Amino acid sequence: MQQANVRVDGKRLWASLMELAQIGATPKGGVCRLALSELDGEARRLFVRWCDEAGCTVAVDAIGNIFARRVGRQPDVPPVLFGSHLDSQPTGGKFDGAYGVMAALEVVRTLNDLDLITEAPLEIVAWTNEEGSRFQPVMMGSAVYVGAHDLAATLAARDRDGISVGEALARIGFAGNAGLFARPARAYFEPHIEQGPVLEETGNIIGVVTGALGLRWFDVEAIGQDSHAGATPLRLRRDALLAAAEVAVELDRIAQAHQPNGRATVGAINAWPNSRNVIAGRVVFTVDLRHADEPALDAIEGAFRAACAAIGAARRVTFNITEVSAYPVTHFNASAVAAVRAGAQALGLPHMDIVSGAGHDAVNMAGHAPAAMIFVPCAGGISHNELESAEPAHLEAGCNVLLQAVLATANA
Amino acid sequence: MQQANVRVDGKRLWASLMELAQIGATPKGGVCRLALSELDGEARRLFVRWCDEAGCTVAVDAIGNIFARRVGRQPDVPPVLFGSHLDSQPTGGKFDGAYGVMAALEVVRTLNDLDLITEAPLEIVAWTNEEGSRFQPVMMGSAVYVGAHDLAATLAARDRDGISVGEALARIGFAGNAGLFARPARAYFEPHIEQGPVLEETGNIIGVVTGALGLRWFDVEAIGQDSHAGATPLRLRRDALLAAAEVAVELDRIAQAHQPNGRATVGAINAWPNSRNVIAGRVVFTVDLRHADEPALDAIEGAFRAACAAIGAARRVTFNITEVSAYPVTHFNASAVAAVRAGAQALGLPHMDIVSGAGHDAVNMAGHAPAAMIFVPCAGGISHNELESAEPAHLEAGCNVLLQAVLATANA
Repeated sequence: MQQANVRVDGKRLWASLMELAQIGATPKGGVCRLALSELDGEARRLFVRWCDEAGCTVAVDAIGNIFARRVGRQPDVPPVLFGSHLDSQPTGGKFDGAYGVMAALEVVRTLNDLDLITEAPLEIVAWTNEEGSRFQPVMMGSAVYVGAHDLAATLAARDRDGISVGEALARIGFAGNAGLFARPARAYFEPHIEQGPVLEETGNIIGVVTGALGLRWFDVEAIGQDSHAGATPLRLRRDALLAAAEVAVELDRIAQAHQPNGRATVGAINAWPNSRNVIAGRVVFTVDLRHADEPALDAIEGAFRAACAAIGAARRVTFNITEVSAYPVTHFNASAVAAVRAGAQALGLPHMDIVSGAGHDAVNMAGHAPAAMIFVPCAGGISHNELESAEPAHLEAGCNVLLQAVLATANA
Repeated sequence: MQQANVRVDGKRLWASLMELAQIGATPKGGVCRLALSELDGEARRLFVRWCDEAGCTVAVDAIGNIFARRVGRQPDVPPVLFGSHLDSQPTGGKFDGAYGVMAALEVVRTLNDLDLITEAPLEIVAWTNEEGSRFQPVMMGSAVYVGAHDLAATLAARDRDGISVGEALARIGFAGNAGLFARPARAYFEPHIEQGPVLEETGNIIGVVTGALGLRWFDVEAIGQDSHAGATPLRLRRDALLAAAEVAVELDRIAQAHQPNGRATVGAINAWPNSRNVIAGRVVFTVDLRHADEPALDAIEGAFRAACAAIGAARRVTFNITEVSAYPVTHFNASAVAAVRAGAQALGLPHMDIVSGAGHDAVNMAGHAPAAMIFVPCAGGISHNELESAEPAHLEAGCNVLLQAVLATANA
């Protein structure tokens, strides 16, 4: 049998995705399955049962990441790892994360159907708490796995009800073995819906993900002077909302100068006193800056800070800028990316190179093993939303690309 | 005795203001005396007692406006009316409204000290619910008095607890006689703190108020598409917050083109989902447009609507504009304004003509009788705030101008 002839079972993949989506299903057709909740535990148990049934050996590490190992002909070489996460946003969809894990399972089931044993072992992984909705930080499981975050500190993080990660892991029975951390892997592949509109808009089915945008998050406070909207002439105003609006417009100009990969977003804004006839004396807003190149990201941040300084001076408004977090630009491993691209080419699927705008566990893994991702379209680019939707044929195509990339890597 | 020689007692004015400010005093030095509350009732009773002690005849109309009449030599001619309001904002100051009523009382007390009887009778007025904080609409008492609002509908307006204006009036014992409405007046004068920074900034003590800005209020909804801040390239965004920010900046440009009396303010803004890594799909913001000339206000509104249309088309964001309320431009009566100006000149007080940016009961009265206002500075232009502050000497000066204007008008 030639590698190019093997195909996954798209109907089985879809059926598993739909069965999994029942756990935490919302009335609007989405999923609410917060990390380490009872529902997350239920989804984990279903996944573990399916892995058992597929002949895998399941292990759980000390942050709750689940590894389902399928033997290879060479039992002692590092495995090819692939998967994603099972947790969701509070009003999440059926595919974000779940697709990567179910696609990984489908690859193993297909190899079982074909009695095909790879040279290197394979491991499906379901990372703990990618979303960061209940416990911070995001991408928790992969970060602890690769040593980017400290285990003890992470286990002590608490949700709004005061429950710690460690307590929640114990409650659902997924506190495992720290000795599993940071094992070598031949490669890591993560299939995922794009969560953006580019594949759909360009008519591509497969996104060959070459890396991820670097990210810098800021909180910005604008301090002016609240005063009467009628009684205060323009020249005597210190309008924090107007100054914030001017920064938002200027940020768009800055990002437009760094296309196609520059992004600048003011997503949240709150004004005080937030009254229709009072000039706002205080406004707090968020700034999200991204780019595929670190020097360009530096330039964007510099222009943003300069804009605040200039607008603040002109409007007599003080800007206080606080960096909230930052992720460097990620460049995925060239060989792993090539394996994904070759898979799409071999299958004759319309594909394009794409840079992930969102963070993923693959970003953490990229520093630890040759990593790459496979994107498939989602309707309208909508994600983190109960309306998240994807075509069965596209999900099947992405799974077939994963199968090709895994076989090529595991048998190399 | 020449009119130019009479002076009010500034210390007595200040003492009355401070005593009144004890009713509803807040820990931060302000006043919370919502319209028709128990505290408003207490303030009204104190005011009525002081009017009784000053020899006035007190009457209350059916919306609770209080009139304290001092006889004139010609008992049957229309009185000269002067005053303001006793209610406050929830976190209001000691001077907004209260100053006008206490200044009016001080004028009567001064005339009593001097045994000076004017030709026309005088009436101090304390209007009901100028602030509109508890019951809408604002400037309620004067609007019903002049027939701009229907009495029955106004009495039926309810606060957040379901208590109607009529019930609240009855509870505090200030439901009076509808026959008092819309009586002719020779003139109406209202002293008030400026609630803006212009007098302070220009070094003037008296603002000769020639009119009030026309006002148009809008709610604006911007509908875009919420999407991932990382995964959505700029060219595919429909960013409602960015479009709203662009409108805010454009509104400032529009108002700058209509100086010195044009005003445009975005005071309140709310975004959904208001999350740092999600492009806002929906933003609601307020627009407050003002000008001293109706055609200019038309031009500002037209430019605002055109800006929304252009920005909406460019950003693929839909703007829904709802007019919330509108007040036409007010031009105060030339003779009444001249009486105020002459008073300031006679007293040698630094003064300037000024247009009120805020609404006042005088705006309602301007359609009914020759009306004018006297502004005095407040520190930093701050009002509707517990930190509201005014100089005793300035309050005394404004009260002396009121005395001059009242005497000149009542004896004309």
